[in-house]
Amino acid sequence: MSDRTVRPPTLAVVARHAGVSVPTVSKVLRGRSDVAAATRAKVNEVLDALHYPRQEKVAGLSLIDVVLNELNTTWAAKLLAALEFEAREQGLSMVVNSLPDPATRLAPPRRWLENLAGRGSSGVVGVMIELSDAQREYLLSQELPVCIIDGKTQPAGISGVRLLNYEAEHRATRHLIELGHRRIAMVTGAEKNLESARRLEGYRAALEEAGIELDDRLVERGGFTADGAIAATRRLVQCSGRPTAIVYGSDKMALAGYGVLAAQGLRIPDDISVIGFDDTVDCDLAQPPLSTVAQPVAAMAKTAIGILTGSIDSGGGTMFELAAELTLRSSTAPLGRRQAARMSST
Amino acid sequence: MSDRTVRPPTLAVVARHAGVSVPTVSKVLRGRSDVAAATRAKVNEVLDALHYPRQEKVAGLSLIDVVLNELNTTWAAKLLAALEFEAREQGLSMVVNSLPDPATRLAPPRRWLENLAGRGSSGVVGVMIELSDAQREYLLSQELPVCIIDGKTQPAGISGVRLLNYEAEHRATRHLIELGHRRIAMVTGAEKNLESARRLEGYRAALEEAGIELDDRLVERGGFTADGAIAATRRLVQCSGRPTAIVYGSDKMALAGYGVLAAQGLRIPDDISVIGFDDTVDCDLAQPPLSTVAQPVAAMAKTAIGILTGSIDSGGGTMFELAAELTLRSSTAPLGRRQAARMSST
Repeated sequence: MSDRTVRPPTLAVVARHAGVSVPTVSKVLRGRSDVAAATRAKVNEVLDALHYPRQEKVAGLSLIDVVLNELNTTWAAKLLAALEFEAREQGLSMVVNSLPDPATRLAPPRRWLENLAGRGSSGVVGVMIELSDAQREYLLSQELPVCIIDGKTQPAGISGVRLLNYEAEHRATRHLIELGHRRIAMVTGAEKNLESARRLEGYRAALEEAGIELDDRLVERGGFTADGAIAATRRLVQCSGRPTAIVYGSDKMALAGYGVLAAQGLRIPDDISVIGFDDTVDCDLAQPPLSTVAQPVAAMAKTAIGILTGSIDSGGGTMFELAAELTLRSSTAPLGRRQAARMSST
Repeated sequence: MSDRTVRPPTLAVVARHAGVSVPTVSKVLRGRSDVAAATRAKVNEVLDALHYPRQEKVAGLSLIDVVLNELNTTWAAKLLAALEFEAREQGLSMVVNSLPDPATRLAPPRRWLENLAGRGSSGVVGVMIELSDAQREYLLSQELPVCIIDGKTQPAGISGVRLLNYEAEHRATRHLIELGHRRIAMVTGAEKNLESARRLEGYRAALEEAGIELDDRLVERGGFTADGAIAATRRLVQCSGRPTAIVYGSDKMALAGYGVLAAQGLRIPDDISVIGFDDTVDCDLAQPPLSTVAQPVAAMAKTAIGILTGSIDSGGGTMFELAAELTLRSSTAPLGRRQAARMSST
């Protein structure tokens, strides 16, 4: 297996030698018919001269590629398990990739994108990634089916799967209102994140519909990190007119918040109700078990794989928005008398 | 992509038509030279007649296969992230598979094993799986590099990576002894599990070395499940001579135990110290943050990928045993006066 360390020439090098574009090289590699015979011959000649490794597509052994921003999270574990199940059901094998540096770049590396054609991948599921314009155009030119789950942005012509975020958070907030809470805080995810923005809108709308005045001090940014959630929760419990319930943008942030609340001597749900987001493996283990907004990962995976196999007609880039369910465990409770009394005194 | 639903004939069918063994068919598919020319010609003839899809091996675009018993766990997420990192460093792409039914069968499905050759996989990492004798022989006959991480058993001729489980639990137990604890309980994993048995031995040895008499009531089986850990913890806190410290066989079980301890009004670590096992993403978020035995996943992944690429010489089946580190957070504390008083009164 020593030849593995010899990397093949990039498609760009092949394209330069053949005097054609990179998408044309890739089309030839993938056996597409929409390349002129003379061009195809020229590209094949260069590929052979540069000893470019060739691989044919195999029915029933087809690969799909999943590329995630990050692998070591409970949310990634849950989604990957669902994607693997769906892929297996369709006779597909799933190549898993994560971004080398999600903190700074959300676009997959160029080399990875080129390797898709080289190894005959028949489709791509991107999870929380961002395609550059060039990458988007490259994938579209390849007619390689692509689906982005929870994309930061929605590139034109690319299909996507995401949650009805507005409705999900609206529902979570309304549940707390129905329990009698009026001082309901929200710890949001990332400011520029489309999902976070929609969730914040859902939260605000639910409050407004109930005639509850919005209080900006009750909205804190958690940045989808434990540290961010800890700092946000500290600010919330220390502000005058402390909330009696907190809606968090992720289970991870909610569980980080649990620690702060316990350290402040606040009992969940007696003193304060908490709702998370995602419904990851942690929720059941938390003390008390965490009520949360359950992302419909099985349906998301089924939709994404369906887009890749063509069993779902996604046309020229459709956004499939799926509804979340509220999974109630033990971290929410009706507003208590003691809480109500404290609130009326502030 | 409609041809994907047409599955290729199994290797067994090809072998029967060609009058050869399955390994011989696979060798021909993989371009191995140790097949007689006439046999090769016959097999190729049958493969073509049955329209068996062919795929050539590609340098720099090589695939490896990872097969795990289960994907949706924090431990799987951590290990997969480490394996993906190492594979990427070596220019390998990682196909991820999970067992369809880990509850009843720990051996990968036969079709999956045969597909390895079909798609030109250059090696297999198995995680907590069990190979049948036939599967072991098949893989060995293929000279396909294989490494099993945390295998239930260790098949002859197959290399493995696992933890120094005895030493790891010995270390965790000794840490508690050094903190003054003498009534130290253990919630084990699965009874027939080799790792669990070694960890239990390490726990017992540490107690014996410290001159602490073994008390069978302090060893409970948790079965690596939250429910098992909850039941085990209940029995432990309700027995006379309650422990002042508990060693759990996994973080998941320790966090499930947290709930029982809190419900019993026991504070961690003031009333009872707790140590987990694995060091998954949950430990930091727990309240209090969980001290645990950290599995060296980065080293495990590096070793496994090294065995596959041949950069680590594993001979005819070597077991690589790696040391764990104790990661101390806030769930362990010196034996308190109140605890000691209660113990001497029992």
